[in-house]
Amino acid sequence: MTEFPSATADPARTISAEACAGLLADLRSASPLIQCITNAVVTNFTANVLLALGAAPAMVDIPGEAAQFAPVASGVLVNLGTPTEAQRAAMLEAAGAAASSGTPWVLDPVAVGFLTVRTRTAQQLVAQRPTILRGNASEIIALAGSGGGGRGVDSLDEPAAALGAARLLASRYGSVVAVSGAVDAVVPADGAVIRVANGTPLLTRVTGGGCALGAVMAAFASLTPDPLLAATAATGVYTLAAEKAAILAEGPGTFAPRFLDALAAITPADVRQGLVLPEDS
Amino acid sequence: MTEFPSATADPARTISAEACAGLLADLRSASPLIQCITNAVVTNFTANVLLALGAAPAMVDIPGEAAQFAPVASGVLVNLGTPTEAQRAAMLEAAGAAASSGTPWVLDPVAVGFLTVRTRTAQQLVAQRPTILRGNASEIIALAGSGGGGRGVDSLDEPAAALGAARLLASRYGSVVAVSGAVDAVVPADGAVIRVANGTPLLTRVTGGGCALGAVMAAFASLTPDPLLAATAATGVYTLAAEKAAILAEGPGTFAPRFLDALAAITPADVRQGLVLPEDS
Amino acid sequence: MTEFPSATADPARTISAEACAGLLADLRSASPLIQCITNAVVTNFTANVLLALGAAPAMVDIPGEAAQFAPVASGVLVNLGTPTEAQRAAMLEAAGAAASSGTPWVLDPVAVGFLTVRTRTAQQLVAQRPTILRGNASEIIALAGSGGGGRGVDSLDEPAAALGAARLLASRYGSVVAVSGAVDAVVPADGAVIRVANGTPLLTRVTGGGCALGAVMAAFASLTPDPLLAATAATGVYTLAAEKAAILAEGPGTFAPRFLDALAAITPADVRQGLVLPEDS
Repeated sequence: MTEFPSATADPARTISAEACAGLLADLRSASPLIQCITNAVVTNFTANVLLALGAAPAMVDIPGEAAQFAPVASGVLVNLGTPTEAQRAAMLEAAGAAASSGTPWVLDPVAVGFLTVRTRTAQQLVAQRPTILRGNASEIIALAGSGGGGRGVDSLDEPAAALGAARLLASRYGSVVAVSGAVDAVVPADGAVIRVANGTPLLTRVTGGGCALGAVMAAFASLTPDPLLAATAATGVYTLAAEKAAILAEGPGTFAPRFLDALAAITPADVRQGLVLPEDS
Repeated sequence: MTEFPSATADPARTISAEACAGLLADLRSASPLIQCITNAVVTNFTANVLLALGAAPAMVDIPGEAAQFAPVASGVLVNLGTPTEAQRAAMLEAAGAAASSGTPWVLDPVAVGFLTVRTRTAQQLVAQRPTILRGNASEIIALAGSGGGGRGVDSLDEPAAALGAARLLASRYGSVVAVSGAVDAVVPADGAVIRVANGTPLLTRVTGGGCALGAVMAAFASLTPDPLLAATAATGVYTLAAEKAAILAEGPGTFAPRFLDALAAITPADVRQGLVLPEDS
Repeated sequence: MTEFPSATADPARTISAEACAGLLADLRSASPLIQCITNAVVTNFTANVLLALGAAPAMVDIPGEAAQFAPVASGVLVNLGTPTEAQRAAMLEAAGAAASSGTPWVLDPVAVGFLTVRTRTAQQLVAQRPTILRGNASEIIALAGSGGGGRGVDSLDEPAAALGAARLLASRYGSVVAVSGAVDAVVPADGAVIRVANGTPLLTRVTGGGCALGAVMAAFASLTPDPLLAATAATGVYTLAAEKAAILAEGPGTFAPRFLDALAAITPADVRQGLVLPEDS
């Protein structure tokens, strides 16, 4: 049994809505180019999320090109949802090239734990020290070496239950670890916990709701040397836009296009006013 | 030329709207976990259909994981739309594992007949005796060994023309055979025919309209030992939701999100009142 | 440095809105069957665009089937967006079979230039003399052997800058070359330039906005022996429908379903009245 750092080790680091708003303004000016090696289910939605927000997606995911592109990309997403053999090779290529060229990159270890092929690849990838590691509670717990993972792509655990595992991964790999849930938690290597309380349950009724957030984190990570700020701003902008979309949606089907509209429309002022970043209790 | 059983052999088996409504209520409580090995075109739509309805999709489709997951899944869909070499291996793995572990599974032999690679794989798969075999009339006729198949993914034949082929396949493999069309037909091994007369032509204007129904059949098949009821209830709930969505749609584009909304909103009471299950004439 | 033909060589060839309208009417009657070997990001959107317009998509993209299907398809699209090894083999198969059987085919060399794997495949494919070659300015310049290509899938060049490259490719391979941009340009082997000034910037905020146009070009090319008319009519119908959708859209998310609705609703009379085909200045 892996021993996790204590949950009471939180330093007092906070992130302001103002800083998140500033990063959204930067994203709109910079239009970062985000390489996505992601799963077949969500590739279209992920590209549309990036385009709506103002970033430029590039799904360069074949061996021979993945390593070539990562150094010129602004950020890279590696998502293990449907990892073909060629994609697994491309992921390792891209992660290596991103790491050595200084391109920030995000690892999303979808459904690791029970499924052996992707779990092996995830362990190889995380050893490359991703800038941000993003997953649901079950995935983070499984990757830290405890628990059996979720039920397929669903989490059976709440983010609070994953904080110890998140701290372990953050300190072992120097990554910021973002755990999604009703209240999202972002955990850096020093053990602080930033919480984002925006969002809507409709995000869990659209496939790719979590996966596309990984791509958005890669976009924000390209704008600042502070991945804790990047992961928090990405989570905040994304879940606040989702909240706005939920008001106009009549179900999960009409939510998806409304969400893309909201990502295109959300302003730094909206973020300044709407972000809910509860202080650690 | 294959000789088909006579179309006049119908026993008097019927399925009630009440039973279909009950199964929808069960689906909402159970939230079955459905493994989908499906084509690149419809994987996103299929996952969103399952999520909207209340099931949990898991697109686990690589060799080495497909067989691992099938025994823990509630149901499995195998769809031959864009069968890469790795997917074909994963399909055979998953079908074998589903068959031996008792997980119900659905085979959708998309575009078999003229196209040789998938037709060979479909013949191997059907020999594993799928719980439900779902296709359009041309696909069912082609798989039974007669006819040249459809025009790509379209059917050139009406369901009525495929009843003999459906009976042959049902009795040869012990599968329930569901034939989609303006009036859908569901045929069990004993030769009965259940007809579902709900639906809208808009379902044929959205890619994946038929493919996603296969996934829904896998979800319903996980809830009952009676695959004839499962296939009928799945068809009824799906096509009735489509009818409701068509009222609000302004074309095939706005139909798709409205359809997902309708799948999320449809109740057992709607099914009890709205299902049209014509007695055999 | 490649020397491009002079931009002042334009002959006086024009295309009328009337001819484009006639071709749309033909498409609705013929419902051409379009084989698409396209990228994972846009395959769903591309199929839905073809279905909405009245054509029949068939994503037959595996080796062993690609060559088998191309001779029976009405038209073929080959798009290099996410070219797996198997897809690259299928592309070469399909292009060869289309060329030898007389099936019109469209090549979309997505993101060629910097990325070496696809660029090698694009050079092999273009040597098979596609009926229509479709790309953004950066891709057309890169394929002609000059320039470094775009920034991933985005163009860094305006269509006007690509006219020389387009003429070179058109005369070298006998293809009609279509360059997308704010004003689209269509260039046949004889060096004429047809311009289409319809459209909306929202088309660049939805992934597959350009890729799906390639499939529509394949559909129109199946209806006439004149690929200059086909490429122009496809561009005109597509961008005019996009204009109509933009009026009803509230952002890039709601634009996509509205666009599919508009493709289903657009009539030959709309095309006759709405197409903007500016004379060469």
